[in-house]
Amino acid sequence: MSKKEIRVALIGRKFMGIAHSNAFRNANMWTDIPAKITMKCLCAEDNTENLKVFADKYGWESCEPDWRKVVARDDIDLISIATPNYLHKEIAIEAAKNGKHILCEKPLANNLSEAQEMLEAVEKAGVKHCCGFSYRFTPSLALARQLVQEGRIGRIYHVFVRYAQDWIADPNFGMVWRFDKKIAGSGTLGDLSAHSIDATRFITGLTFKEVIGNLQTLIKERPLDSNNINGPKGKVTVDDVAQFLVNFEGGATGCYESTRLATGRKNYNTIEVNGEKGSLVWNFEDQNYLMFYDNQQSSKEAGFREINVTHDVHPYKGGWWPQGHGIGYADLFTIEVAEFIRSIVEDTPFSPSFEDGVKCQKILEAIEQSAATRVWKNV
Amino acid sequence: MSKKEIRVALIGRKFMGIAHSNAFRNANMWTDIPAKITMKCLCAEDNTENLKVFADKYGWESCEPDWRKVVARDDIDLISIATPNYLHKEIAIEAAKNGKHILCEKPLANNLSEAQEMLEAVEKAGVKHCCGFSYRFTPSLALARQLVQEGRIGRIYHVFVRYAQDWIADPNFGMVWRFDKKIAGSGTLGDLSAHSIDATRFITGLTFKEVIGNLQTLIKERPLDSNNINGPKGKVTVDDVAQFLVNFEGGATGCYESTRLATGRKNYNTIEVNGEKGSLVWNFEDQNYLMFYDNQQSSKEAGFREINVTHDVHPYKGGWWPQGHGIGYADLFTIEVAEFIRSIVEDTPFSPSFEDGVKCQKILEAIEQSAATRVWKNV
Amino acid sequence: MSKKEIRVALIGRKFMGIAHSNAFRNANMWTDIPAKITMKCLCAEDNTENLKVFADKYGWESCEPDWRKVVARDDIDLISIATPNYLHKEIAIEAAKNGKHILCEKPLANNLSEAQEMLEAVEKAGVKHCCGFSYRFTPSLALARQLVQEGRIGRIYHVFVRYAQDWIADPNFGMVWRFDKKIAGSGTLGDLSAHSIDATRFITGLTFKEVIGNLQTLIKERPLDSNNINGPKGKVTVDDVAQFLVNFEGGATGCYESTRLATGRKNYNTIEVNGEKGSLVWNFEDQNYLMFYDNQQSSKEAGFREINVTHDVHPYKGGWWPQGHGIGYADLFTIEVAEFIRSIVEDTPFSPSFEDGVKCQKILEAIEQSAATRVWKNV
Amino acid sequence: MSKKEIRVALIGRKFMGIAHSNAFRNANMWTDIPAKITMKCLCAEDNTENLKVFADKYGWESCEPDWRKVVARDDIDLISIATPNYLHKEIAIEAAKNGKHILCEKPLANNLSEAQEMLEAVEKAGVKHCCGFSYRFTPSLALARQLVQEGRIGRIYHVFVRYAQDWIADPNFGMVWRFDKKIAGSGTLGDLSAHSIDATRFITGLTFKEVIGNLQTLIKERPLDSNNINGPKGKVTVDDVAQFLVNFEGGATGCYESTRLATGRKNYNTIEVNGEKGSLVWNFEDQNYLMFYDNQQSSKEAGFREINVTHDVHPYKGGWWPQGHGIGYADLFTIEVAEFIRSIVEDTPFSPSFEDGVKCQKILEAIEQSAATRVWKNV
Repeated sequence: MSKKEIRVALIGRKFMGIAHSNAFRNANMWTDIPAKITMKCLCAEDNTENLKVFADKYGWESCEPDWRKVVARDDIDLISIATPNYLHKEIAIEAAKNGKHILCEKPLANNLSEAQEMLEAVEKAGVKHCCGFSYRFTPSLALARQLVQEGRIGRIYHVFVRYAQDWIADPNFGMVWRFDKKIAGSGTLGDLSAHSIDATRFITGLTFKEVIGNLQTLIKERPLDSNNINGPKGKVTVDDVAQFLVNFEGGATGCYESTRLATGRKNYNTIEVNGEKGSLVWNFEDQNYLMFYDNQQSSKEAGFREINVTHDVHPYKGGWWPQGHGIGYADLFTIEVAEFIRSIVEDTPFSPSFEDGVKCQKILEAIEQSAATRVWKNV
Repeated sequence: MSKKEIRVALIGRKFMGIAHSNAFRNANMWTDIPAKITMKCLCAEDNTENLKVFADKYGWESCEPDWRKVVARDDIDLISIATPNYLHKEIAIEAAKNGKHILCEKPLANNLSEAQEMLEAVEKAGVKHCCGFSYRFTPSLALARQLVQEGRIGRIYHVFVRYAQDWIADPNFGMVWRFDKKIAGSGTLGDLSAHSIDATRFITGLTFKEVIGNLQTLIKERPLDSNNINGPKGKVTVDDVAQFLVNFEGGATGCYESTRLATGRKNYNTIEVNGEKGSLVWNFEDQNYLMFYDNQQSSKEAGFREINVTHDVHPYKGGWWPQGHGIGYADLFTIEVAEFIRSIVEDTPFSPSFEDGVKCQKILEAIEQSAATRVWKNV
Repeated sequence: MSKKEIRVALIGRKFMGIAHSNAFRNANMWTDIPAKITMKCLCAEDNTENLKVFADKYGWESCEPDWRKVVARDDIDLISIATPNYLHKEIAIEAAKNGKHILCEKPLANNLSEAQEMLEAVEKAGVKHCCGFSYRFTPSLALARQLVQEGRIGRIYHVFVRYAQDWIADPNFGMVWRFDKKIAGSGTLGDLSAHSIDATRFITGLTFKEVIGNLQTLIKERPLDSNNINGPKGKVTVDDVAQFLVNFEGGATGCYESTRLATGRKNYNTIEVNGEKGSLVWNFEDQNYLMFYDNQQSSKEAGFREINVTHDVHPYKGGWWPQGHGIGYADLFTIEVAEFIRSIVEDTPFSPSFEDGVKCQKILEAIEQSAATRVWKNV
Repeated sequence: MSKKEIRVALIGRKFMGIAHSNAFRNANMWTDIPAKITMKCLCAEDNTENLKVFADKYGWESCEPDWRKVVARDDIDLISIATPNYLHKEIAIEAAKNGKHILCEKPLANNLSEAQEMLEAVEKAGVKHCCGFSYRFTPSLALARQLVQEGRIGRIYHVFVRYAQDWIADPNFGMVWRFDKKIAGSGTLGDLSAHSIDATRFITGLTFKEVIGNLQTLIKERPLDSNNINGPKGKVTVDDVAQFLVNFEGGATGCYESTRLATGRKNYNTIEVNGEKGSLVWNFEDQNYLMFYDNQQSSKEAGFREINVTHDVHPYKGGWWPQGHGIGYADLFTIEVAEFIRSIVEDTPFSPSFEDGVKCQKILEAIEQSAATRVWKNV
């Protein structure tokens, strides 16, 4: 008997649209999911010619500029949303109404209430839903979670978390839509801290109780035109640095920074977890490794271990190559898509879901409020 | 006007067959080569059903168990050879006679004379040829070469080179065909040192003058059946460790080790180049980085720099993602295939070619002879 | 003409007493200070025999259990205070009244008002004063400051600072006086964060404007007797984790953690400074190195550089050995003592002084208050 | 009852003379040896005034320019030889005749026969002897040996060893006596490879069976005057790079490089040992760490561990500070002197002895001969 088929439409065709395209194109090649993926339709607001070029390049069978038509099509099982954030809600709700399974990029929405509406819609429709916290699918981060769950870390004392980039460290880097709060919702907080919060939840299972945040816009205006740095400037209305402290339920604490101004840090998405029995250090820039300190070993032999997470026994088989051959950024999405489709076909619970998206949004909102009011805020 | 089409057949479907398949499947997606790749035919000695499964998974349009038929087909432009080494020669020569461009895995052949025959064949036929030294297409290794060529290292004093793995460090790891000299040709020397030699030539441009080698088989017999380690054993007839010293033309020296017994080293393919003006350190296990020491800087500020080779200004654009997002093992092959096809379409010289394969083979042979005779041997 | 002589008395003979003894014993050997150090007298509350053993071992000429007698002696120029913190104030004030120069361990006192009294006393007496922020004398940290002052980092955006140890991560580690607030004043905050705060001020020159802190006691009780872990327990009244956020004058921000519960971290005293033109990363566990990212370099060649700070051109000559031979923990104190004595003999300004001690105390106090009140607090 | 006294004379007052002085001055402070060290006499060929300055600075009680007088003095128990190599033999033999215990710097002599004469002399005299392979006293290297001896590495397959510096990488660095074979004996081979050979013997216990070496002088002439680089040049008659391969008794192999031309490497004294059960990596530039890979662990958790060798359970107690506080280069000599004096007082066997010096010399000689004859040479 032939494999089940999962027919996909992608909405959006920028950075994340490319990442999704690659994943749908290659998931059957690298993983053993019990379904055949068909790349039915690419959707984005553009002229047919441009869409056609993109679709041909990445392997989409057809194109359609109007997302409303796409989500209503009978020959589509799964809608992948990779649009700017402010469009997530409407598309997701419409897709859910049409009974489509949904993979939506993070942050789930521009604010908590939108995110909650989306969650209600998918739950009501009974469709499967994925919020694209793609880093969960890095074998090394998944191994971190396994070690915590197996009790190798013991009681968790604290987490120390940083997501640092530097692409706007130059004050002459010009205005882009991402610096406009109306369009982007937030700056580093929604973009980077969202990942840090989800990684914390994923690895540790801890529940955020209360937060105090400090959101700063250190570079307050930027040239409207990068090529004319002495020309007129625009006002940056989102944070470029987000720092916050956390008390978790049960007593553990956390210290976080997200920034786009850390000169020299490129995609330095890191988390350190310290517990009674051991510690973990993860850094996406070295994604094929996980550092693990096991203090159950004798003091004589104990030390942070650099585990090369590329062995068959590792999560997601540590990638698909012999040991030490390593995978790259694109492969996270391939694994994510494969696992999501597996959950659809096998009808098993999936995480990260929209519920994870809502929980993250709730924490982000509390941080924003605590930054505005300058007092601790319950989540 | 439509793009030129390059129609490909792949012969072989193991480790390298998979790497090639992925590359042909995705090169148009990640690179801007002026041709459309068509995956015409998969060829391997197997029954039709098995071939069909592989072809479907990786995207080959058709299957054919007989390579002689494949190389003779009119609708094929490029033959990709990923078979065991001992088959390379015959296939390549036949393919060349039929006017096919050829990508052949390394080592080019099991010995120098075979490699030379292959080179003669492709030159006579006037086809393009690539010997699959895939590591050349790591952006970090390519940057190393650029820095040398730009004079940033100055006169080269010496290279210190090591390719270490550990997959057979356990003496109970059973016999496989790779341990049989008749089939495999050689052990670590042909498999790993070949890469080290090519990387040296690629980065430094140095010419090997004379060598002295030490080839050892430290684990001399292994269980015929891994599941019965106390059962009958077979004799290992290839080296598991290869060490050699080199004097290059012009006076630089080199020190090399390749091993499959370096417990803890997974795919530790490394090279250090030390010159009058600076040094370079490359390690494939951290393939998105290159270490560079520039002693033209003041002593106060000089230090080995970890360059994250993922920027648009880096070779092969440092991959195709924003900085710090990194690529993986599979992507080397994608770049290799793209560059080879570009050279076919644009009719430009290509390297690594069969000539590079022959040069490498010549050096390997001198090492083997020096190991047998225990005296230095001219290349 | 003979060198000036500086006659020293040490009060205290535990961890810091040993560090000071070594420094006074060897400063003339490793540095070129224009004075001869004489180790006149060791003082600690103990019987004569015990004092004699210590004095002989470390080279003190005489012993005296009563510090009041010591600070009054005519043949002493410099008093080195290495007692528990609660004794600092009284000794320092008495020593100042007697016209002695004073080196006092950090934190300067158990609270701000005590520290201020001490500062007033030394200023009134016109003696030289040093607050023992010994890490300032690590050549690598001193180089960090130099690079900032030379403009190599440019406008500073933020600092990310962590001082992590693990010596009490085991909940069965028993009660010691350091866990009693009455005696110790505070826990990690005064012990570790004090160093982090001073390192920030030293390197960056930034002024702390406001802070919000979170002080936690995660292990709330410990066995009174380590050898009887099921026996009676005592209450821990100091913090074992201190986290805080900072806004500096001029807009830079900071994120800090100090902890004694970071399993696997031994003396992980670190600071990262990110600025418009570059970044610095310092980690005392690798004290002979400083990481520097210079973004004035081309993107092609830029990367974090590991500067081995052991060259003659480095601060404090990078130690006293040929390059790469490295110094250890003890040597910081030797440099500190040498520099302090140089400032006495040459009558030049010295830093870190009691003023630096007071400034640090002020910040620590604001953090404690903000933690108690759960709102931001001006420094 | 009072401790035994060991009265010391030092001959030589350059780099090693300083290292020895510090060690004798401070060994009683940092270690618990059952003897009191008295620094009786400094000896060097110089005028009294210069000697006096050095003696005062480092704590020697008296000075004497004539070493023959010193070795004959009744009030001296131990002679420490830190002169240029060519003087070692005569001094050591004379000291032995006078019944003095001897600590002699490495290499023991300028050639094998001299070294053997020295060994005969100390054995005949029945005095204790130490050949100054100081790196053995790094706690991390000593831990490496322990782990091998405890069977944690299992059967050793091979060693990969490199000692790289860069202080003469600049061809305009002028002639010094070290580049004259008549005075210095050899270049990198005797200076650096001697350490690598001893470290191999110390850690692994392996016996060198045969060697093939390549000694090169890459910079063949240098300015006689560094300040006049276009002025007259002198001929360099020693090697600046030494590379060699080794077969050990029992089948293990080795690959070595020593160089003073490795731009960016400062005192990069490293050794990697790969065995059936695990691997070790040691690098003096990070002397407070040892890397250990234990493949008895599950593949899921295995990785190179960075052991911070500063705990009480580590060799030589990992230094004398709390964990993570690290020691420096000077401290190796302090430990060496302490252990040597302990063996004198307790009359226990000591290693590294002159016998170790002779064994090293034998290997160095075989390497030189193999380099001259270009064939493998038995040790």
